[in-house]
Amino acid sequence: MTLLFCSNIDNAGLWRDALGRRLPGLSMRVWPDIGGPDGDPDDIDMALVWQPPQGVFAGLSNLRLVMSLGAGVETLLRDPTLPDVPLVRMVSDSLSDDMAGFVALQVLRWHRHSDAFDAAQKAGVWQWLPYRPAREVSVGLLGLGELGSAAARVLTALGYRVLGWSRSPKQLPGVEGFAGADGLAAMLPRCDLLVCLLPLTADTQGILDRDLFARLPAGAVVINAGRGGHLVEADLLDALDRGHLAGASLDVFSEEPLPPAHPFWRHPRVRVSPHSAAATHPSQAVEQVVATVTAFREGRPLANVIDRRRGY
Amino acid sequence: MTLLFCSNIDNAGLWRDALGRRLPGLSMRVWPDIGGPDGDPDDIDMALVWQPPQGVFAGLSNLRLVMSLGAGVETLLRDPTLPDVPLVRMVSDSLSDDMAGFVALQVLRWHRHSDAFDAAQKAGVWQWLPYRPAREVSVGLLGLGELGSAAARVLTALGYRVLGWSRSPKQLPGVEGFAGADGLAAMLPRCDLLVCLLPLTADTQGILDRDLFARLPAGAVVINAGRGGHLVEADLLDALDRGHLAGASLDVFSEEPLPPAHPFWRHPRVRVSPHSAAATHPSQAVEQVVATVTAFREGRPLANVIDRRRGY
Repeated sequence: MTLLFCSNIDNAGLWRDALGRRLPGLSMRVWPDIGGPDGDPDDIDMALVWQPPQGVFAGLSNLRLVMSLGAGVETLLRDPTLPDVPLVRMVSDSLSDDMAGFVALQVLRWHRHSDAFDAAQKAGVWQWLPYRPAREVSVGLLGLGELGSAAARVLTALGYRVLGWSRSPKQLPGVEGFAGADGLAAMLPRCDLLVCLLPLTADTQGILDRDLFARLPAGAVVINAGRGGHLVEADLLDALDRGHLAGASLDVFSEEPLPPAHPFWRHPRVRVSPHSAAATHPSQAVEQVVATVTAFREGRPLANVIDRRRGY
Repeated sequence: MTLLFCSNIDNAGLWRDALGRRLPGLSMRVWPDIGGPDGDPDDIDMALVWQPPQGVFAGLSNLRLVMSLGAGVETLLRDPTLPDVPLVRMVSDSLSDDMAGFVALQVLRWHRHSDAFDAAQKAGVWQWLPYRPAREVSVGLLGLGELGSAAARVLTALGYRVLGWSRSPKQLPGVEGFAGADGLAAMLPRCDLLVCLLPLTADTQGILDRDLFARLPAGAVVINAGRGGHLVEADLLDALDRGHLAGASLDVFSEEPLPPAHPFWRHPRVRVSPHSAAATHPSQAVEQVVATVTAFREGRPLANVIDRRRGY
């Protein structure tokens, strides 16, 4: 039982320690050392990866299970070397907490004029800026899966009016649900802030475009914590610069890292963060990996397997 | 039935409209015009006030009810002209939402390195900064009244470990409760962030002092959204400058507006806001005032009356 670990942001040492304590029989190799000191690539039967380079699976002829360190797997699905074995995404309560925290932080920053208060502090000015009560502010969520549901729970606890859109109709406590194209058209004009937490699929690619922005009320704010591919970046810049949108918080981009010359970096009403909205913390996520590996070894059904036709 | 309105931050016109619609027989005067165009000060039987100047009640011999536009009434209680009539504080769900939102915003800013990510954006640098999972971060609340309970609900929804301290023991869902001096001593060493939402009384004056800071773990963050009188400002500056505390978010101060020369304005690890954590929005708070006035006129018991011995 040998696991290949491949990620350029997750800490291999922390994962080795965490998995070693719980799965003593496990051997772990860290890409690109697929042979390792004491074996050959044919030993590798499992992989635990985050956005690995294309072609990473070439030559791993005995791979039987691929686990993603994140919730989104669209880059994996584009890799022609990905074998036809179960692909399991990360679903951890801690990942949901992170994302809900990111969404709450961004919604509160815009709603509560946080940056303007900071600027007043820098200027040494005691200036009260009126804000609306949360229960008169509507936040629309695109996507009501694990992450969207977690964000909805926090936003309702904060008192916001929460509207939620999903492909198929869903009922969540305190959330006014919308579905399908008609539902989206009905929801958008009512959103003071719009948050994208969709999976990236052929259907959702470029959903945050000129047409969608035009249907939001003037002064709306867009928060993208889904994937860069959801957003047509030029359309967002245009809607901001025409003054139709008041601001945007972006955690994901069509090219990551965001290129140094990209106008988002210096736009006064764009908040850039480096794909940091949610993280897979070994201390929290190790249990899911252990459960998946154990079920796999014992031939039991696996949870959180990607439906490759749907893409999530 | 004549009401005197006195506040230097609340909008008298909005309140006149909101109350006029619901209480058509009500006459409203706005301080300092206590006589008004069509009457004398003896007509005034009710007052709706926020931090009025000392002596505001002198000459109002028929005052029978005083309502505060805020939750804290310590400046009112210090006014020797305050008559011995029911003093009602503001308790609105919207006030609690505001405060919970402020607390969540400040906790998330510090926990999620928001300012450091902003600085990275300004520098055009794509830099991932690791943060801990919320469920490994402990937030201590001082005060578990209306506002503290609302903050606890939001912080637990965000996944934080929430510890709460109150004068008398309280049980709140998901909150580990502490009470009394022993409880405070037990709670403080476990708080990564400490939030003060206490009422200001003789017992809580200066509670955020050198001794308390010394019992917090190194690197802790202090958030004061109670009253300026809770904090010994020189002790906080000392704890920050020695590096024992990592930062502070302060919404209230011993002197407000915060004087221009005060070191908090320019301290790199202090976030100043101008007593804006919670606001009394007429659209949301008018119902409580209407209910109080109606009960008062009909001789029914009043809700949210201050116990002057306790001070809240």
